[in-house]
Amino acid sequence: MNFPTITNLQETYARVKPHVHQTPILTSVLINDLAEAELFFKCENFQKMGAFKMRGAINAILNLSEEQKKAGVVTHSSGNFGQAVAKAAKTLGVTAYIVMPKNAPEVKKNGVISYGGLISECESTLVAREQAAQNIVLSKGATFLHPSNQLDVILGNATAAMELLAKKPNLDYILCPVGGGGLLAGTALAVHHSSRNCKTIGAEPFAVDDAYRSMQSGKIEFNTTTETVADGLRTHLGDINFPIIQKCVSEIIRVEEDEIVSAMKLIWERMKIVVEPSGAVPLAAVLRSQRLFSKKKVGIILSGGNVDLGNLPF
Amino acid sequence: MNFPTITNLQETYARVKPHVHQTPILTSVLINDLAEAELFFKCENFQKMGAFKMRGAINAILNLSEEQKKAGVVTHSSGNFGQAVAKAAKTLGVTAYIVMPKNAPEVKKNGVISYGGLISECESTLVAREQAAQNIVLSKGATFLHPSNQLDVILGNATAAMELLAKKPNLDYILCPVGGGGLLAGTALAVHHSSRNCKTIGAEPFAVDDAYRSMQSGKIEFNTTTETVADGLRTHLGDINFPIIQKCVSEIIRVEEDEIVSAMKLIWERMKIVVEPSGAVPLAAVLRSQRLFSKKKVGIILSGGNVDLGNLPF
Repeated sequence: MNFPTITNLQETYARVKPHVHQTPILTSVLINDLAEAELFFKCENFQKMGAFKMRGAINAILNLSEEQKKAGVVTHSSGNFGQAVAKAAKTLGVTAYIVMPKNAPEVKKNGVISYGGLISECESTLVAREQAAQNIVLSKGATFLHPSNQLDVILGNATAAMELLAKKPNLDYILCPVGGGGLLAGTALAVHHSSRNCKTIGAEPFAVDDAYRSMQSGKIEFNTTTETVADGLRTHLGDINFPIIQKCVSEIIRVEEDEIVSAMKLIWERMKIVVEPSGAVPLAAVLRSQRLFSKKKVGIILSGGNVDLGNLPF
Repeated sequence: MNFPTITNLQETYARVKPHVHQTPILTSVLINDLAEAELFFKCENFQKMGAFKMRGAINAILNLSEEQKKAGVVTHSSGNFGQAVAKAAKTLGVTAYIVMPKNAPEVKKNGVISYGGLISECESTLVAREQAAQNIVLSKGATFLHPSNQLDVILGNATAAMELLAKKPNLDYILCPVGGGGLLAGTALAVHHSSRNCKTIGAEPFAVDDAYRSMQSGKIEFNTTTETVADGLRTHLGDINFPIIQKCVSEIIRVEEDEIVSAMKLIWERMKIVVEPSGAVPLAAVLRSQRLFSKKKVGIILSGGNVDLGNLPF
């Protein structure tokens, strides 16, 4: 893989921009006082379908040939990326096949259906999901889209940090959560090519600290548990995003579960916005590592706001 | 009482503006589709201390003489107005005495304390609260501020709708919740003096429909129960706001409890913002009376976002 250039980023932004919301950047005097830093929250919870995933999905579909578009796209996801692909595909008049486990919550299935996606049900194992997606690739000629380990998706994700840096060029740090690595790699690329004196930091739960361990060992590590409230961060890095993360991310900060819930509550109570647990992980990292960020200007990518209101952690 | 003039409103706005947030106006394609109307949400949940009450409180204190300011202000409230007076008074260097029942939740007491208010505890009856406030008026020379039935407070509250109309001059309707009547009277004044072809509608729960009955009977009616999820709307109208409401409000729409909870959930899930149950009552009214609002441009004052996250109705 050639390392993506600033031109790749600029072309991506021009392509993606008409199809996404330029989300607001919010601040909170009270949270700044608590953190003793100046925080700028890039609110991707206000993005179309409620998460940054829309950016990567739309870019990946826009990059397909007309022939590929006619045959449709397929992904397997029980989370935000399935909805993002369904919504992005609908926007562009493309058929989206979303493989979901039979036992996925009705609310998530309904989300995909409301965006016009065609659900293929399968057993709930990863093998069954991959097999079902592969069957659709073979039978329909659809193109498979990966939620985090695909360059088009990573470049699309980068546009959130690009918008943040365009509005706030003097940030000392940008933090985002790291799960599959697609957002962190995109964010790091945007920071790297901004030529600013800004560092990218990933934030993840101790419970699923594969990214931290991967950075230490120099190879992709895996999690033995998925026991974290940050349900978007249970996956591991991929061979396309990991080299970018290795090259452009300065460190990974890990946080405890109760720190994630406290940070999430703080955002809801003080900023009056709905963010998902994964989106609160970077604020938890800033509050935990207060000395590092003291008096600094810190950008935070609030990754999304899709939560089950009937199952909140507080 | 002389009926407030447009000059009163303009002077109020000039006075209040430097001390409040000009809150954003948000829209939702999905909610518009559901309502078959064009809705504009004036987000007072993003106001300082999390509710429109800041506007009335700051105006009332700004209107005091220097001597009155030195002696401080007092109110009795277990809700948003106590916090608003504490915060507004602190902003202006004025002492705020907030009478609260002994059994008020710690979180509400802490809210007042965090804004620098001095809490006076009393028994939880209305008589005890009024007596305790009166004692502070007598002993400290403090000025009593009423949360809804005071002209300065009503005029301050009007500035939310003034900002909305300045940005969206072609609204057919503006809706707001009605509890004590201070927000509804202020909103109606702003609409009345805008000289636009716009109507003001109040929204309240069936369970505490004193405003609806007052409009029917022509005199202030009371509630026999406070059993509603919309905890900000349990109070009744006053002799200062009721004449304004009679003159300038076209109707009151009542909604069921489950409609309030559904509307609140819709706002949280789709707009990704935190609003309190009272703030969701106008959307519930729009969805209930869909024919009235069909194809219309409708402004909604989202009154506030101060909720107990540990005690949500869904």
